Amino acid sequence: MDIHKLIKPLVQKNDSKIVLYVADGLGGLPQAPGGKTELETAQTPHLDKLAREGVLGGSIPVAPGISPGSGPGHLGLFGYDPVEYLIGRGALEATGIGFELQEGDVAIRANFCTLDSGGNISDRRAGRIPSEESAPIAIRLRDVKIPGVTVFVEPVKEHRFVVVLRPDDAKGFGGEVADTDPQATGVPPLAAKALDPSSERTAEVCNEFIKQVRVLLKDEPKANCCTLRGITGKPSIPSFEDVYGLKAAAIAVYPMYKGLASLVGMDVIGDASTLDDQMAVLKDAWNDYDFFFIHFKYTDSTGEDGNFDSKVKRTEEYDSGVPKIMHLQPDVLISTGDHSTPAMLASHSWHPVPTLLWAKHCRSDGAQSFGEQQCLTGGLGQFEAKHLMTLAMANAGRLAKFGA
Amino acid sequence: MDIHKLIKPLVQKNDSKIVLYVADGLGGLPQAPGGKTELETAQTPHLDKLAREGVLGGSIPVAPGISPGSGPGHLGLFGYDPVEYLIGRGALEATGIGFELQEGDVAIRANFCTLDSGGNISDRRAGRIPSEESAPIAIRLRDVKIPGVTVFVEPVKEHRFVVVLRPDDAKGFGGEVADTDPQATGVPPLAAKALDPSSERTAEVCNEFIKQVRVLLKDEPKANCCTLRGITGKPSIPSFEDVYGLKAAAIAVYPMYKGLASLVGMDVIGDASTLDDQMAVLKDAWNDYDFFFIHFKYTDSTGEDGNFDSKVKRTEEYDSGVPKIMHLQPDVLISTGDHSTPAMLASHSWHPVPTLLWAKHCRSDGAQSFGEQQCLTGGLGQFEAKHLMTLAMANAGRLAKFGA
Repeated sequence: MDIHKLIKPLVQKNDSKIVLYVADGLGGLPQAPGGKTELETAQTPHLDKLAREGVLGGSIPVAPGISPGSGPGHLGLFGYDPVEYLIGRGALEATGIGFELQEGDVAIRANFCTLDSGGNISDRRAGRIPSEESAPIAIRLRDVKIPGVTVFVEPVKEHRFVVVLRPDDAKGFGGEVADTDPQATGVPPLAAKALDPSSERTAEVCNEFIKQVRVLLKDEPKANCCTLRGITGKPSIPSFEDVYGLKAAAIAVYPMYKGLASLVGMDVIGDASTLDDQMAVLKDAWNDYDFFFIHFKYTDSTGEDGNFDSKVKRTEEYDSGVPKIMHLQPDVLISTGDHSTPAMLASHSWHPVPTLLWAKHCRSDGAQSFGEQQCLTGGLGQFEAKHLMTLAMANAGRLAKFGA
Repeated sequence: MDIHKLIKPLVQKNDSKIVLYVADGLGGLPQAPGGKTELETAQTPHLDKLAREGVLGGSIPVAPGISPGSGPGHLGLFGYDPVEYLIGRGALEATGIGFELQEGDVAIRANFCTLDSGGNISDRRAGRIPSEESAPIAIRLRDVKIPGVTVFVEPVKEHRFVVVLRPDDAKGFGGEVADTDPQATGVPPLAAKALDPSSERTAEVCNEFIKQVRVLLKDEPKANCCTLRGITGKPSIPSFEDVYGLKAAAIAVYPMYKGLASLVGMDVIGDASTLDDQMAVLKDAWNDYDFFFIHFKYTDSTGEDGNFDSKVKRTEEYDSGVPKIMHLQPDVLISTGDHSTPAMLASHSWHPVPTLLWAKHCRSDGAQSFGEQQCLTGGLGQFEAKHLMTLAMANAGRLAKFGA
């Protein structure tokens, strides 16, 4: 089912406010069978109060058993089918460092590599060159000049950097070019090869880029060449305003989440570095937007670290933000995660994400607190994350009846 | 997934009886958070008994967050994907007044309007002309004669009437013609314009119809012209018998629901005006059909009125019909609604609809009564309404194994 096709004709505007308060990697696992998860262990009085008034459920980010990355995890929460709307690796890498892609751009993940005197790759990661050495080298690559194209080069970490090609031609570049990394040593890098006719020029520009890189870096002992991977155009995603008629703002600390929000056309607002900052930005912008996406990172990072106790503490910090949101009297508040990150797994996982929807007419389900166990019998059941925005819109009175 | 494609090869016949007992708008909301819904408040001893023996769940009419009209709501219950099988506005309006559309017909919602002396619309609704004035004028339009076409005109209410064009040509008319209502005053009505080649003749006939209307009504002070909207063919829906191999009867009081049942090829039987009448019709026809759809309207109309207590009373009336059905010993009884109509919202809503399936081998779930809360932990879980007929067929022993 194409949910956007279903929803778009039903959208009606009003002055309601919707807040999507995301604790990245919220869902967890107990340390021993029968025990409590991180969320169930945490003292979360504010979320528990909302759970009593609201409705709970389990959000399945992509499909049962699928552990998503941040890209599909957030696209699902934003109401986009994460299997249909794929963000190419290059575009995701550029987005992740806060680079704002434009229509027609091509984004590329590049790796420094070492070529031997015969022109064959001797090290695919240039000896895992440290960031402090690689960043200045990446910046030197800004000297590459290709007629008709603006070339952006941004250091990332160690041997990794990002290249964005922006053609002067308004038609833009095709984004279908194969990787130049041969995935082997003792052989030369591959030439960039277009996978469709509209990407012929993109491939030529990629080859010209590498040619100039080899000249610029010919005296480097380790990073004397690079390979290009994940070559992709800006993903073609209908904007949040177009689909939902919502003026939307994103309040995040980390570039990746700002980038994901900007890919769907949200305004990235404020310059917060703490949750308190984020809440201050929210308050200041409250009258200017219909929808707010607030991203809290540390429930994921502590989960990734495998640190159960830290994740509990960070969950409590997340809970402490709730009264500041509720003080502004939103019409709909959703608390959820983009995926589970159980400390016991120290990684993203496939488990349904505890989800709480609070609104005046949400039909509450008798839950007394917010946790994985309570979500199992919640009134939202288990549902694909992509339906959450439709529920938010309905609860905000922003969807007309379908059919007569 | 195309459920019909899946089911059709599996259908096997037997002498079981299935009853789909629909309380329109059944689901509700408590008057205050934590309180009881209309269904939970009502004394429903007969449904509660079935709940103890049967299995409960929550039916999602179309998709999470979508509030359906009666058309998509019922198509879902009949096992048709309500997004795939759309009923055009003209066809639904004709259906709603009990007009039986045939293959090849084109149905149109028409509005009387007022033209000024310059031929511009001065009132798009002819001064909201009262029904007692407009009905005789609509009937006069039956004098329109167009070669090769039978023209039906039926009054509806105030400025609204229905036109059905039935071509002599067995190929029928295309139903893709744009509205002639310019949605503005001070401008002339639009000419009917075909949106595809097969609808060219339809558009010509529409324009000829309007031309004759202007002559017939030239002396009317208010309703001296009309606009045509929602011009649509009969929806192409595979019949109930074709999909399920069921000989099906509909027992309804209101034309809309008779019409919806006839669109999927059910026989509309009896001439009931009360629930007692409907049960008498059911009893009389018991041996003649495999499947019975019984429609009870008043749980919806009281909900639409925002009258919680009346909806409770009407729910109790609905419950009183249960023993009369059970006395006939059906093999499968389903009690559900086409959508929720909480009195608190005084409108159709998106909330899952309480659903009860009773059959010998339904695997009951320990529920002690029938209500929204009990349905949350019911054995059917939350499911899209379109799957309900497959469950009915399975419980009736009418579906063979899929694959070896």
